[in-house]
Amino acid sequence: MEHAHRPFDGADYTLAERFRHARALSEALAAHLSDADATIQSMEDASPTKWHLAHTTWFWETFLLRDRSNDFRLHDERFPFLFNSYYEAEGQRIGRFSRGMLSRPTLEEVISYRHAIDQAMEVLLDREDCSELISLGIAHEQQHQELLLTDIKHALFQNPLGPGMFDHAAHASQDTATGWLEHPGGIAMIGHNGAPFAFDNEGPRHRVLLEPFALSRSLVSNGEWAEFIADGGYRTPSLWLSDGWAWVQAEGIVAPLYWHDDDQFTHAGWESRVPHAPVTHISYYEADAFAAWAGHRLPTEFEWEALASQADPSGGDQLDQAAAIMPRATTSLFGSGWQWTRSAYLPYPRFKPVAGAVGEYNGKFMSGQFVLKGASCATARGHSRASYRNFFHPHQRWQFTALRLAKDT
Amino acid sequence: MEHAHRPFDGADYTLAERFRHARALSEALAAHLSDADATIQSMEDASPTKWHLAHTTWFWETFLLRDRSNDFRLHDERFPFLFNSYYEAEGQRIGRFSRGMLSRPTLEEVISYRHAIDQAMEVLLDREDCSELISLGIAHEQQHQELLLTDIKHALFQNPLGPGMFDHAAHASQDTATGWLEHPGGIAMIGHNGAPFAFDNEGPRHRVLLEPFALSRSLVSNGEWAEFIADGGYRTPSLWLSDGWAWVQAEGIVAPLYWHDDDQFTHAGWESRVPHAPVTHISYYEADAFAAWAGHRLPTEFEWEALASQADPSGGDQLDQAAAIMPRATTSLFGSGWQWTRSAYLPYPRFKPVAGAVGEYNGKFMSGQFVLKGASCATARGHSRASYRNFFHPHQRWQFTALRLAKDT
Amino acid sequence: MEHAHRPFDGADYTLAERFRHARALSEALAAHLSDADATIQSMEDASPTKWHLAHTTWFWETFLLRDRSNDFRLHDERFPFLFNSYYEAEGQRIGRFSRGMLSRPTLEEVISYRHAIDQAMEVLLDREDCSELISLGIAHEQQHQELLLTDIKHALFQNPLGPGMFDHAAHASQDTATGWLEHPGGIAMIGHNGAPFAFDNEGPRHRVLLEPFALSRSLVSNGEWAEFIADGGYRTPSLWLSDGWAWVQAEGIVAPLYWHDDDQFTHAGWESRVPHAPVTHISYYEADAFAAWAGHRLPTEFEWEALASQADPSGGDQLDQAAAIMPRATTSLFGSGWQWTRSAYLPYPRFKPVAGAVGEYNGKFMSGQFVLKGASCATARGHSRASYRNFFHPHQRWQFTALRLAKDT
Amino acid sequence: MEHAHRPFDGADYTLAERFRHARALSEALAAHLSDADATIQSMEDASPTKWHLAHTTWFWETFLLRDRSNDFRLHDERFPFLFNSYYEAEGQRIGRFSRGMLSRPTLEEVISYRHAIDQAMEVLLDREDCSELISLGIAHEQQHQELLLTDIKHALFQNPLGPGMFDHAAHASQDTATGWLEHPGGIAMIGHNGAPFAFDNEGPRHRVLLEPFALSRSLVSNGEWAEFIADGGYRTPSLWLSDGWAWVQAEGIVAPLYWHDDDQFTHAGWESRVPHAPVTHISYYEADAFAAWAGHRLPTEFEWEALASQADPSGGDQLDQAAAIMPRATTSLFGSGWQWTRSAYLPYPRFKPVAGAVGEYNGKFMSGQFVLKGASCATARGHSRASYRNFFHPHQRWQFTALRLAKDT
Ligand SMILES: [Fe+3]
Ligand SMILES: [Fe+3]
Ligand SMILES: [Fe+3]
Ligand SMILES: [Fe+3]
Repeated sequence: MEHAHRPFDGADYTLAERFRHARALSEALAAHLSDADATIQSMEDASPTKWHLAHTTWFWETFLLRDRSNDFRLHDERFPFLFNSYYEAEGQRIGRFSRGMLSRPTLEEVISYRHAIDQAMEVLLDREDCSELISLGIAHEQQHQELLLTDIKHALFQNPLGPGMFDHAAHASQDTATGWLEHPGGIAMIGHNGAPFAFDNEGPRHRVLLEPFALSRSLVSNGEWAEFIADGGYRTPSLWLSDGWAWVQAEGIVAPLYWHDDDQFTHAGWESRVPHAPVTHISYYEADAFAAWAGHRLPTEFEWEALASQADPSGGDQLDQAAAIMPRATTSLFGSGWQWTRSAYLPYPRFKPVAGAVGEYNGKFMSGQFVLKGASCATARGHSRASYRNFFHPHQRWQFTALRLAKDT
Repeated sequence: MEHAHRPFDGADYTLAERFRHARALSEALAAHLSDADATIQSMEDASPTKWHLAHTTWFWETFLLRDRSNDFRLHDERFPFLFNSYYEAEGQRIGRFSRGMLSRPTLEEVISYRHAIDQAMEVLLDREDCSELISLGIAHEQQHQELLLTDIKHALFQNPLGPGMFDHAAHASQDTATGWLEHPGGIAMIGHNGAPFAFDNEGPRHRVLLEPFALSRSLVSNGEWAEFIADGGYRTPSLWLSDGWAWVQAEGIVAPLYWHDDDQFTHAGWESRVPHAPVTHISYYEADAFAAWAGHRLPTEFEWEALASQADPSGGDQLDQAAAIMPRATTSLFGSGWQWTRSAYLPYPRFKPVAGAVGEYNGKFMSGQFVLKGASCATARGHSRASYRNFFHPHQRWQFTALRLAKDT
Repeated sequence: MEHAHRPFDGADYTLAERFRHARALSEALAAHLSDADATIQSMEDASPTKWHLAHTTWFWETFLLRDRSNDFRLHDERFPFLFNSYYEAEGQRIGRFSRGMLSRPTLEEVISYRHAIDQAMEVLLDREDCSELISLGIAHEQQHQELLLTDIKHALFQNPLGPGMFDHAAHASQDTATGWLEHPGGIAMIGHNGAPFAFDNEGPRHRVLLEPFALSRSLVSNGEWAEFIADGGYRTPSLWLSDGWAWVQAEGIVAPLYWHDDDQFTHAGWESRVPHAPVTHISYYEADAFAAWAGHRLPTEFEWEALASQADPSGGDQLDQAAAIMPRATTSLFGSGWQWTRSAYLPYPRFKPVAGAVGEYNGKFMSGQFVLKGASCATARGHSRASYRNFFHPHQRWQFTALRLAKDT
Repeated sequence: MEHAHRPFDGADYTLAERFRHARALSEALAAHLSDADATIQSMEDASPTKWHLAHTTWFWETFLLRDRSNDFRLHDERFPFLFNSYYEAEGQRIGRFSRGMLSRPTLEEVISYRHAIDQAMEVLLDREDCSELISLGIAHEQQHQELLLTDIKHALFQNPLGPGMFDHAAHASQDTATGWLEHPGGIAMIGHNGAPFAFDNEGPRHRVLLEPFALSRSLVSNGEWAEFIADGGYRTPSLWLSDGWAWVQAEGIVAPLYWHDDDQFTHAGWESRVPHAPVTHISYYEADAFAAWAGHRLPTEFEWEALASQADPSGGDQLDQAAAIMPRATTSLFGSGWQWTRSAYLPYPRFKPVAGAVGEYNGKFMSGQFVLKGASCATARGHSRASYRNFFHPHQRWQFTALRLAKDT
């Protein structure tokens, strides 16, 4: 096998192999969780593990099996109400913060649901007319893998016992990078043309005019963040956006999420923080304040993409297997943590959502959020690319969100 | 065995037997629940099953084993923080609405905790100097049995699948009662003298002057409540207390909790309502409005007790075993549902809470609540008595709360 | 004139004289306020001065002129919607917290409204068949005088400039009382028979059985309260009711309302506190905690009334004129501040609200509140009596609420 | 006078003349308001008229008189706490939603404050080194004129009497425009170079690459909006952004703000809606949904500016005098209503806020808001320009916000 020597990233594999790999990884992520672990929901933004496992399965069942196969019967007619996320075109659904009440179906029943749908999917995996939707389904599955990991981390964090779900992994050696990556400015091509696969929000591909700029080669580290704190960063209103300062005061924010003294909460429970590792779990507001403090700024999504379009999107610290994840310093533009940009999440010129329920995937979220680029240690390797546009609200920080500084040159 | 012919109510049993019986029943109530079922929490007022099982155990461990035995070691030093309910004197504890995040310890670990404490308790069961606290502990265990049942009912109700935890029980034949129980008024002795056991809030025993009155022999039934609804009861402000009318409008209340069309949610899932069965799951506000509609009123706690002091407190429809419970019409003043009184929950003359943490049991809740008398189908038989004072806020209705009308004569 | 030598308290005056006196006093209270002062509303519990002036007028217009005179035309057909308070039977009304948006009608227009209604009322003042309703209207007017004073105090307090509405009055000499008033217990007659005038909630008159008790001759003073604070009273959970402790923590309560350092806010602006003066502006929770700290308790409403039934209800520190008011120590059971009792506000035996809209006056508020007895420095002299039942929620403290300790003997 | 023949727009006037004109207009806008009208505050987003009049005065007093004159004494040392808006560098200030509690100082005292500062300002009006700050102060004064008008409109709207503050003006004849304004795309210069005056957020001037597009010659009209409503626009989730749909449902939105039946609330009270007049008081969400329904889209701020840079910024329906304002259809790109763009309010490349408190003017608001272009009927003529960037949150609609459709060509 020609790809045995490097982590699986989907390249050179058939769609069927990629489908099976993605489906297996989702299950593996939950392998050490009890039914109860997989049931709880810690906040409205997060979903239970069990729900992620079932919702991704509902996606396949609905948009592939129901819409594309002849001989279809719902696995359980009560499931669409439970496991539709937000597709208005697909009908009513359970209230978002009620997902944590689903002690039934059990985790075991959800796994059975997965297996039944996986089996039924086999006949569609090689069908030409399904390949685009299958690619979308795999990408969707991978997005929920990342959410599964960040949501369960947040849930376990609520427990005073500080339980972990994976063993502690010895911290791998890190590649530190210094200095700046320069870009001369000019007209850059931004966005994806959609083949082999990209989300609709990554296109249409279009030209953008850039001024000369530079991006830091490294993500901001835990150690640098500690200096920001020591210098009173969280107590200095002039560093903050107005909304950010209101948030800091209302929520009593004094450090990134999951920090406590010199420790941080991880999927392996409480661990010592590694100073040279990238800081993660920061809000846009915090990232912006840090950049102001450092005398620099956040990149735009266009600057980041212009520099990253030549980089290997499968490089860096990304998710390869079901094990403890921990953002590490690398020399890649991708991985470790999603990088906040100062670009609001808006449609590209001539953007049109695709028709039907799948068109609700991205377009309807285009207000109030900011674009993040790159990938994180919880992003399935092979999932991201230079044109990829992740997006979150500026106060959210339960994802592995990180910061790469930019400056004008 | 001399008591085999009637349900266990504690009478004629040793304290040790009653301890073992109560501990076993708590476990039996949870026997059909999964770890996930036992973990979820549907609202701040309710607690997870697992938490009830552990908290009652913490009570024994703390107030008996720790305070009364020589050779004591905490079963798990992290548990007091998790399983203390509200005893300020016992230190910090987890936020009340975070109890639903405790996927760990597992239900199995909680059961092990129970067994370990049960075993350790054996040496104290016959000690004279512990008997009072053991009686308190048993009463406490029984209170949490009732809460366990009402809390898990509320949690399962949130699930669109409407899962049950027990099999449907064929509805037993009912004894219907008609007419009124008269009382001539005069000076009545109210309250318990504390022996053999009563909560501190039931005393001191004291005299109360009553005017002539009568109580209905029967609880208000589902069928009568349906008439109240049909007559526009929920839409007529003149029937309601001001706070009640505000509550009806803010919450959109149109029927008792758990009603839907002609069905009601039960521990066996959704079932048809039985018209002659007592209505339950009503708020004080609803009870008061119904009484106004019916041209009568709620009893005071003193009136109720004056009539009930000659009745058998272990009669009627009460909890005997771990099985589906369903309020039934009986001729007893006790059982089926807790009966709202128009008496605010206040201290009796010369009431003094006992010293120490146990003194927080009742006294500090004496504002904003109303007294309920009797017992419900979820109250362990033998737990209640004429002087028993249950109390809830006027809007709460997830308990088996019911209504017995009163009138002046 | 035989009553010139003592403050007006209504006694020995005709109903017409009392009507005119009450109406004039309301206006006088607002005489130093601007239209803007009279318009603002500081919280949902409080109403603008202008609204009080208009609402009391609406009461006369509606329940006297409209219901009892032949030749009636509304002064302004838009006013009932604006100035009905809570009478469901009288139709829709403006949202309670929108009263502060009524910059129109102007204060001047409201005064004109008052004068027009006053004039129209003249023909009814001597009519026998109106006397009961007129007595009710006067009592209503007086209640709103007190609310006017406490509401505008709260509104002016919001202003960082700390404006006053009256000149500072030199603090009158005080009569201090010490020791306890004893009562032997036994059967007491409680409640009013309704003649010459009382609110419906003060009856029916009935017997209550009392245990021996004593009430303090003096109200708790500012100086004693300062000791409670210095002793950590606000930081000691064991002193507090559970709801009270939650309130202290949620609201960050550390002192009575209007206290700041050694000063307190008054109708004459910020003033030094007088240590021997009665503490006022305390919640039920605070009163209860102080009593626990002092080793005593709150009286019941029945105990208070049993002792006060022989006292002069027009004695003590009560409202005589439009001037700065300031609670003073006196030897009267009445006046200075309304005294919290531990009695929940509930109907007396055989209580029935009167029919019609006026029946909403009291009865519908009988849940969730506590009874206060006596009168305050803001209560029109002559308004109160031993059977008078004032009532507020246990957290409310913008009234002149005070504390008289009780003990068992 | 050479400019008597057209409305005052500042052009050809000295800075001193423009200062005096702006100051006088602010006062004139409030001339028909009572002290009470000028005191009330209807929501946190809005401020009382009196506060606007005083805050703008505080701006002159602080940043000109205090910072630039030798012989300075505060007019009233309590005013900075009351009338600082949001400048962290200028110290503490009153809570934003407490502005409505300022019945004192009176409107008259605020006017006196204005006159005193106006007089003191005279010596600075010709000073070269002050001209930039004076230009900023005038712009600031004008912004608050618009807010004064929109805030008092919202306050008067709360009053069931529906009071107006100006006489009804006969609706002027309108110039209707049809069709599209085409733009070929290419590189456009965007932003202002700062001279003679612009806000810091309008620069730095920079190049932007545009695709071919067209803007509608007319704003969307009331009549067209009525069609959108009739077609179920507010009930069709597929037309809405996700946040917008949540807002529509949570707030029960069914029409633009101030619509009721065929009427709309105006500064002259309730008036019939004019079908051909531009719709105003719409949120971003509504604008976006309408555009989706119409098969078009919102313009970007760059597209709008590229077309508008040749237009007369003082054209169209803008504020000339203190009188009833009513958006009218015109052929100008400017005026009538601020036009929502799909551009988030973000910093331009190489943007740096100016140092000091004045640097808080714009920069710190650059998250969560959208840019609006043009001007409204409440914008002082001469205030706006092509590069002007107004900004509001997407749910806000108490401004005269409007919609000009765009399309790709
Ligand atoms: Fe999804
Ligand atoms: Fe307990
Ligand atoms: Fe009233
Ligand atoms: Fe300003």
